[in-house]
Amino acid sequence: MINQLGERESRALLKEEVTGRLGCSDHGKPYIVPVYYLFDNECVYVHSLPGHKIDVLRDNPNACLQVDKVKDDFHWQSVLAFGFYEEVNDVNERQRVLTNMFKRLPYQTPVESQTKQPEPDTIVFRIRVTDITGVYES
Amino acid sequence: MINQLGERESRALLKEEVTGRLGCSDHGKPYIVPVYYLFDNECVYVHSLPGHKIDVLRDNPNACLQVDKVKDDFHWQSVLAFGFYEEVNDVNERQRVLTNMFKRLPYQTPVESQTKQPEPDTIVFRIRVTDITGVYES
Repeated sequence: MINQLGERESRALLKEEVTGRLGCSDHGKPYIVPVYYLFDNECVYVHSLPGHKIDVLRDNPNACLQVDKVKDDFHWQSVLAFGFYEEVNDVNERQRVLTNMFKRLPYQTPVESQTKQPEPDTIVFRIRVTDITGVYES
Repeated sequence: MINQLGERESRALLKEEVTGRLGCSDHGKPYIVPVYYLFDNECVYVHSLPGHKIDVLRDNPNACLQVDKVKDDFHWQSVLAFGFYEEVNDVNERQRVLTNMFKRLPYQTPVESQTKQPEPDTIVFRIRVTDITGVYES
């Protein structure tokens, strides 16, 4: 039996996990990429090299992040957070975000976490979350 | 180092796995749901009860399925298949698809696999795949 997950539980799952699937819409065509992320209860933060998802999100900032936690086929939670893409360009804010990401994801950002500096063309962005929905089976 | 995965390897991954994330676009807003699926090298088959993703896909048939296989943070593959939503309404075709799904996914379709009959309002659909891209790190 699939049930609705409350907003508090959905936010807790987003905070607990660090991998998700980022969705965007390329002129009506959906596009999904796996990402590492951080959620601070307001925004989902991601860093990325330039590429198709960045091009799409600059053109259409509607984004979503789907995150799940699966114990087995009958015990799982899945959350979908919607919001808008914003690039983090302020130097101090960007440094704060990257420092937090390096702390939380030391192994997922090997080059950057060793040097404490991102590659020059790394884009830091956030999805400012406007809606969260969740479902679970247990 | 992230590399492009060839089409043959991408198709092999789609055939091997049974869970993925289905993406659709709701008037420019991306929407993602985890699904069980079967891939026969031409189409991705999914069955679903009515709901938001069906409403969205009926309105805009552009769809994608993202599937990955992760060994660890530095050894993974991720595939993205694009195509168009089509409902399977022909009685024989629908039965053939459901039989194949029940065989491949006996535990993921518990009620239907016990009775060998889907719930009356179950929708069977396929994504007719037009493009596949894949990336990997190893």
